[in-house]
Amino acid sequence: MPQGQVSAVPQDGLTTRQRRNRPLLVVHTGAMKGKSTAAFGMALRGWNQGWSIGVFQFVKSAKWKVGEEEAFRALGRVHAETGEGGPVEWHKMGSGWSWTRKAGTESDHAADALEGWREIRRRIENRVHEVYVLDEFTYPLKWGWVDVHEVVEVLNAREGRQHVIITGRDAAPELIEAADLVMETTKIKHPMDAGQKGQRGIEW
Amino acid sequence: MPQGQVSAVPQDGLTTRQRRNRPLLVVHTGAMKGKSTAAFGMALRGWNQGWSIGVFQFVKSAKWKVGEEEAFRALGRVHAETGEGGPVEWHKMGSGWSWTRKAGTESDHAADALEGWREIRRRIENRVHEVYVLDEFTYPLKWGWVDVHEVVEVLNAREGRQHVIITGRDAAPELIEAADLVMETTKIKHPMDAGQKGQRGIEW
Repeated sequence: MPQGQVSAVPQDGLTTRQRRNRPLLVVHTGAMKGKSTAAFGMALRGWNQGWSIGVFQFVKSAKWKVGEEEAFRALGRVHAETGEGGPVEWHKMGSGWSWTRKAGTESDHAADALEGWREIRRRIENRVHEVYVLDEFTYPLKWGWVDVHEVVEVLNAREGRQHVIITGRDAAPELIEAADLVMETTKIKHPMDAGQKGQRGIEW
Repeated sequence: MPQGQVSAVPQDGLTTRQRRNRPLLVVHTGAMKGKSTAAFGMALRGWNQGWSIGVFQFVKSAKWKVGEEEAFRALGRVHAETGEGGPVEWHKMGSGWSWTRKAGTESDHAADALEGWREIRRRIENRVHEVYVLDEFTYPLKWGWVDVHEVVEVLNAREGRQHVIITGRDAAPELIEAADLVMETTKIKHPMDAGQKGQRGIEW
């Protein structure tokens, strides 16, 4: 709802219209679950605008499927069949990827992560999507597999309306600095505190 | 991802399986935007499980449409046509509803809110949905239009697997107490701090 009060007019030489269409860099970080869920919720709004959605899931196993994946694939088919909403691409960066960093495969993970970033960079430079969700992308940055300075440089130089949403714990200070919007979800109360098991439809 | 460590086994007499299927009451609260977005993201996972999704938007104008509404309506049509995912109902409680509480219409808002809650109560008692999103439902509770004790009583007595997700600021202590999971999203950095205007596809 566009009801937020603007506290100051920025001295950036942009018109209000230009500022409205400025691409945003959004970072969902913090220790809690829910970061990716919030990012995908935001991407739903972009889909409804008819924007091209590109999801790039870093680190997690290709066998690991969140419910959002099927929902977005269905929305992509809705677009292909009826023209409603926007096109959707959903990429997972290989079954070797895992944030538990299994022993013996670290170098492959690093190469896969870098390959993923190179593809995203190409797409940004070619203005392929209007929403990029880089899910769990903070980890390859944290582990030095992808250079955060290169990422910030590419993001700062991106043209057109290309919103980028990055999720994951421990976001690098350089990324926070470059971001327009940084969100952190805090647990006040969680069922696992009371011995509750993870549930399908809720945790995945 | 079901990787959370359970710190204690509860003395509730339930089996692990029963505990896995226990219906959850989730409250997304706090001062930041993003509460509803996170709740709808969670509902996406339920849709993928084939669950019946019922969204009840309290307070906001019927003219007000978030991007999630169209996306969920599209997913509901996908289900109707292909059987994939679950059915979706999306209800908005009248154009008179607004959290700005426009002068002169307060009594109608209160009646509308109560009517909305009565319908939700009937559905819960008849086990109509598996996921209920009560968007902005904290406000009618806060303003005394709907009795929080009645709500907690109905929620505590609900049968089967009926997950309930409630969003809004200033959640009543009774609701927090009854909840299994309470999430609060915190702004670390927001573009409106720098004079950024709200943007389509992002704020709505």
